[in-house]
Amino acid sequence: MEVASGSGDKAGFFTQGRSWLKALPVKFKANMVGMARNIKKLGQEDPRRVVHSLKVGLALTLVSTLYYLRLFYKNYRLDAIWAVMTVVLVFEFSVGATLGKGLNRGMATLLAGALGIGAHYLAGGPILILFLVFLQATISTFLRFLPKIKARYDYAMLIFILTFSMITVSGFQENILESAQSRLSTVSIGAAVCVIVSIVIFPVWAGEDLHNLIALNIEKLGNSLEGFGDEYFKRTGGEESKDDKKFLEGYKSVLNSKKSEESLANFAAWEPCHGRFPFGHPWKLYLKVGTLARECAYRIEALNGYLNADIQASSEVSNIIQEACTKMSRESGKSLKELALAIKIMVQPSSADSHIENAKSAAKNIKSLLKSGMWEDIDLLKVIPGVTVASILIDVVTYTEKISESIYELASKAQFKSVEPTLSPKKLHSGQNQSVKSAQIVNCPDVGINVRESTLPSPPSENSSAPKASKQRMGV
Amino acid sequence: MEVASGSGDKAGFFTQGRSWLKALPVKFKANMVGMARNIKKLGQEDPRRVVHSLKVGLALTLVSTLYYLRLFYKNYRLDAIWAVMTVVLVFEFSVGATLGKGLNRGMATLLAGALGIGAHYLAGGPILILFLVFLQATISTFLRFLPKIKARYDYAMLIFILTFSMITVSGFQENILESAQSRLSTVSIGAAVCVIVSIVIFPVWAGEDLHNLIALNIEKLGNSLEGFGDEYFKRTGGEESKDDKKFLEGYKSVLNSKKSEESLANFAAWEPCHGRFPFGHPWKLYLKVGTLARECAYRIEALNGYLNADIQASSEVSNIIQEACTKMSRESGKSLKELALAIKIMVQPSSADSHIENAKSAAKNIKSLLKSGMWEDIDLLKVIPGVTVASILIDVVTYTEKISESIYELASKAQFKSVEPTLSPKKLHSGQNQSVKSAQIVNCPDVGINVRESTLPSPPSENSSAPKASKQRMGV
Repeated sequence: MEVASGSGDKAGFFTQGRSWLKALPVKFKANMVGMARNIKKLGQEDPRRVVHSLKVGLALTLVSTLYYLRLFYKNYRLDAIWAVMTVVLVFEFSVGATLGKGLNRGMATLLAGALGIGAHYLAGGPILILFLVFLQATISTFLRFLPKIKARYDYAMLIFILTFSMITVSGFQENILESAQSRLSTVSIGAAVCVIVSIVIFPVWAGEDLHNLIALNIEKLGNSLEGFGDEYFKRTGGEESKDDKKFLEGYKSVLNSKKSEESLANFAAWEPCHGRFPFGHPWKLYLKVGTLARECAYRIEALNGYLNADIQASSEVSNIIQEACTKMSRESGKSLKELALAIKIMVQPSSADSHIENAKSAAKNIKSLLKSGMWEDIDLLKVIPGVTVASILIDVVTYTEKISESIYELASKAQFKSVEPTLSPKKLHSGQNQSVKSAQIVNCPDVGINVRESTLPSPPSENSSAPKASKQRMGV
Repeated sequence: MEVASGSGDKAGFFTQGRSWLKALPVKFKANMVGMARNIKKLGQEDPRRVVHSLKVGLALTLVSTLYYLRLFYKNYRLDAIWAVMTVVLVFEFSVGATLGKGLNRGMATLLAGALGIGAHYLAGGPILILFLVFLQATISTFLRFLPKIKARYDYAMLIFILTFSMITVSGFQENILESAQSRLSTVSIGAAVCVIVSIVIFPVWAGEDLHNLIALNIEKLGNSLEGFGDEYFKRTGGEESKDDKKFLEGYKSVLNSKKSEESLANFAAWEPCHGRFPFGHPWKLYLKVGTLARECAYRIEALNGYLNADIQASSEVSNIIQEACTKMSRESGKSLKELALAIKIMVQPSSADSHIENAKSAAKNIKSLLKSGMWEDIDLLKVIPGVTVASILIDVVTYTEKISESIYELASKAQFKSVEPTLSPKKLHSGQNQSVKSAQIVNCPDVGINVRESTLPSPPSENSSAPKASKQRMGV
């Protein structure tokens, strides 16, 4: 029996094994198909990723071709390393990040090279040189912990340690001056290729990304808020809406966008003027708007908790507060969407003012409603959820106003165009159109004039600059 | 007159200039003193930073010394670059990050070297080789956008591009097999030096940092909550407390800790067993606890808004709800602090249960209070702030319970020790003492046994393992 069962097991094992082997190609194919779908989605979400990959390939091929043609390089074997390495490590997604890294690398190589040569000649003996390597690596590594240095010069410190060590140590074996000079020149070639390819071919500007991210975040808050009131009272009314309510959760991505906003602002500071953004554009103010938006998102997160709460406002309470609450959420949502649009097309955000006034008057209304005597017979426990929602909404209205103020500040510092009275908000909406958009494009070379006019509140003039600037944006 | 005033201006200019020059050394000194103070603070906040800097210095000096002694290196000039570069780029603050980067670099170099040699021999002509460089750089760069690859293998992709390009391109000029082999061996030496120095000398474990960070965050939430009730009703009572209330704002750092938690968990996955953490410790569960803690922090942020609100609860309302609200905030604060302590010393978090029960009964109380008829003559507007605070606190109590559940899950998966009934909570507190702490230290080499016992709910045995493990933690 034992033997039989054993052979049965064996047969089972083989059958299993065979079916597993048979399933293998199917599984492999499914995996590949899944991966291919992921990759396709990745490219469709942001086609700039495909372009970026092609650009990196191009830059690397250019440097390799220079190497193959033996141009520029004296010592073919060693120096190619530096050019290729520079391209791989410096080429980043946005122009600002690439420029920042390139400048960091160039400056650090120059400084470390000079100090390394000095140290080599001063120190003389190998023990002292090794001690100097130890000392500079320790000090530089520690300085990298300083927040200010970490934010903007981290890469420079890394390259400084690298170059200093290699220059001093390589002095043991070879002509130190020649090696330092060849290193500097190949690093410069690599960095120059990166920067030129990055700027000339479909440039991705960190500043523009920051601008769009802030506008998008505020729009998401607006969408979530605008729908909240209706959804909440529908649910308390017992209706179950089954359509896609994903837009209600749009605010969630705003909760954790602090890091990306900060790094984009850091990169943007390295960028020259481009498209609609002159040199010296107030990037830091975007961070201020972003922080307020995030604080508003925390309130919306609290509100959203009430959408799915066990205890819902009773229908009596709902009837009383519904109108004012819906108005508060709808109007502040609308005002946020207007503010987002104003940022997007760079005009003064005055079209949001009326919505903010409406939201504020609704907040006033609900306060006086709650003051009135109509609550006396109502069980307070049933009042709580509705009243809490109302109270958080009042808070949200306050934040909407703060966001609006910060955007006004941004608009005046960045000289956003003021909307003519003839351009009604409706027209503006349909008018995410070419005329408004192109009218906003600042001519880059006029920056000097813009700066001189910066004491005036009026926006920069825009003659026939639009085509030129948009051409520049396309990177021709 | 004009001339006189002109000369007066000139004199003024010179006086100004002179006083500016005089002030220069003072200013410079003040700047230097300020910077020195910053640097000192940086070291005092976390002395491991100083140790890390010294370790980097040491690793770099070791590699340089090997180079100087001409050990291992065949081609002195070229190969030193790879060892020095590996140390500078791979050495990170924690063991996990260093190991992850080292393994990434080693594997990528191996794979890219093999493929590069293959490509070189298959392609033959330079045009085809340059095309292959372009192709692999484009594809690899694009794959770096895949979230899964970006999280764990970003550095490997970078090194793959670098090595493949350099191996294939350098084939134009030299013996490709020799260059690939020397590159691999020097990279290995550099990576080995990094890993050994990182693990042997005062190792910093990302896993331990994650463990402590989560415990600290929950403790901060607890501190903020515990003090909130008293502070709120003091202020509504018109009292202005002037002492330092910074601990109330401790929760703020929890709002934005998502990124650091995620990267620590990523690094921890690379680490071998160490100290109290066996291999296969459930690091992902820490992220779950962290997410719940953050959601709780959003609620506390909303609560905090009411501390400084214009409209405060009236004293009549305060009198009614004060007791229950204070109890809710105090008890959920205490339970969070117990939970944090339980994580810290790795015991089952049962000491928090009673506090959670207290908080829940207070929440029940306030619900029935609000149901009672005593509210009928009160202006509802004055009720709102107090009632909202109460309502958010009820929400916070719910989250406290969720956090507790997730920590129970962590405790059972990670086999935290259960507290004996003789060990009263009080004893536990005074007992952040050696006996409990050292009793928790798992003997690393016993991991196999722990795994086999993992179906049992009992904690791992701890014989005389403590001294050994703690010795290992000190890195001897």
